[in-house]
Amino acid sequence: MLVRAIGRIGVNLHISPLERAQRAKRTAYSRGAIRGAICMDIEDWEENRYVESGINAFITQMEDSGLKKIVEHVCNAGGKRIRPIILLLASEICSGSYRQSLSAALAIEMMHSASLIHDDLLDQGLMRRNLPSAPEKFGHSRALLCGDYLIAKSIEFISPYGEKVIRDFGKAGMDMAEGEVLDLRLDEENFEERNYFECIYKKTASLFAISASIGAYTGGADEVLAQRFNFFGTSLGTAYQIVDDILEFLEVVGGKESKFTSETLPHVYMKSMSKEEAVKKSVDAVKLHVNAAKETLITFKSCPARDKLFQITDYITIDMLEGI
Amino acid sequence: MLVRAIGRIGVNLHISPLERAQRAKRTAYSRGAIRGAICMDIEDWEENRYVESGINAFITQMEDSGLKKIVEHVCNAGGKRIRPIILLLASEICSGSYRQSLSAALAIEMMHSASLIHDDLLDQGLMRRNLPSAPEKFGHSRALLCGDYLIAKSIEFISPYGEKVIRDFGKAGMDMAEGEVLDLRLDEENFEERNYFECIYKKTASLFAISASIGAYTGGADEVLAQRFNFFGTSLGTAYQIVDDILEFLEVVGGKESKFTSETLPHVYMKSMSKEEAVKKSVDAVKLHVNAAKETLITFKSCPARDKLFQITDYITIDMLEGI
Repeated sequence: MLVRAIGRIGVNLHISPLERAQRAKRTAYSRGAIRGAICMDIEDWEENRYVESGINAFITQMEDSGLKKIVEHVCNAGGKRIRPIILLLASEICSGSYRQSLSAALAIEMMHSASLIHDDLLDQGLMRRNLPSAPEKFGHSRALLCGDYLIAKSIEFISPYGEKVIRDFGKAGMDMAEGEVLDLRLDEENFEERNYFECIYKKTASLFAISASIGAYTGGADEVLAQRFNFFGTSLGTAYQIVDDILEFLEVVGGKESKFTSETLPHVYMKSMSKEEAVKKSVDAVKLHVNAAKETLITFKSCPARDKLFQITDYITIDMLEGI
Repeated sequence: MLVRAIGRIGVNLHISPLERAQRAKRTAYSRGAIRGAICMDIEDWEENRYVESGINAFITQMEDSGLKKIVEHVCNAGGKRIRPIILLLASEICSGSYRQSLSAALAIEMMHSASLIHDDLLDQGLMRRNLPSAPEKFGHSRALLCGDYLIAKSIEFISPYGEKVIRDFGKAGMDMAEGEVLDLRLDEENFEERNYFECIYKKTASLFAISASIGAYTGGADEVLAQRFNFFGTSLGTAYQIVDDILEFLEVVGGKESKFTSETLPHVYMKSMSKEEAVKKSVDAVKLHVNAAKETLITFKSCPARDKLFQITDYITIDMLEGI
């Protein structure tokens, strides 16, 4: 459903020279933005390595059924693992270890992967991250079932974490489905700014929100602190989705091709202003939510994990808008 | 994907005079088969009332979003609530109360309902239980998302029950998806008896199995006793699916219409014998699994809940084959 522009800066082999240049620029930008932090590409972070090794272990132990190849295709397509890394970093800030949080991080990533597959069924996505989408490559039936399989796997991954975390996880899944229904825009005439924000909270920000708050919980945070992490995730996820939409609106899409597309914030604004004004107002909305995310982050314990969350916050939002 | 012949004996208004007569006959048969039990129609059982009221409470509190109507359509289409009732009865046998088990029962029913919706997408089901299927009535996109929503709701419902139960629940969901992939029969030539039994264990029996064993757990059973309940559920679910297949093979289908159908056991057997022999061998397989279910049941504590499980065992298997 989404441009998921983050896929443009892939770790995969399909990266173009132009993108390499953009990426170097972004990294330099980030380096300036979070002075003193350990700056490196996210794929080199230890949190990313934990997530990658967890996913590889899961795929390796799968029976060689009709689903294994699809799971491999979807899970190894160059996604940046942003959500599970956020979870592990939130846990670290709250003094948790990756050992106690990794299974929750994998649950989040599986739920996210399932949503990508089902999104490609909804909007007849042909390409994702420069590769054929799962429905294109493996057929609609197997893609649908692979999504269901990954949601079920996410239940297994989240099973050790107790009632509160598991209930929040289920609720985020319900939000995501409701958000996608809103995105179908069955009443497009009346799809206004508030509908847009409700839609993107549910379909995108809710999973970012619980990535942060479940990480906090598994790290040992109390309810009040976990709520602040939740707010950080909501702000970041909202900014991320608006950026995605701006890039889609401006047709700066990379690696994705679909027959249908989502409503974008600039398009909503264009009902009452010029294209330039609509884009500017959308960029202002990004900045607002990025600032809210950072103002929340700054209240957390100062540590390398927090620095990394600052870096991610820029990386998936304002860094992506450079040069537009 | 399935005939789900149990829908033929609906509590809905679409029941035909012929079906009413068959149903009276079945009830009389059951009455004879389980002497001493409190015999009545399942829809009058208190366990059914608990499940119905739990589902109604869930639907009532749903926001009036694009999903509520689909959930209502799917959840109130005359299903017999067999799986959640099995769960509550298993819990009762192990001295549990419905209060401690109802949320698990609802989780099972939501997972089942989601699988029906996604099945209708897979096999382009047009009618189910004499009503238009969810994809037919509400469109493919909303039906897909409604299935995802119900799986997520099932996570919320199962959240209070601890790691073991939740892990089993997730594994059954994975089994169901894998079973449906096997049912796509991408290599039909080599789809033999053992493939058939693996397929129906995964796609159907696994959910019956955990209905019984999770009920036992929530009622307080230890692992050994819960395993016996699991075996009971596996046997019953296997017999149920073979019956479903026999009725589909003989075109005694009621209330369901699809463009694609599943492989049936008689069809598998017909590769090496006549039609009559294939049907007889399939009926023998039903009896084998029904007997295994009953031999397990008899080892449980004698009580009205056990009598009801005997009644269900006949009701959804051999009673359905009368008159073929």
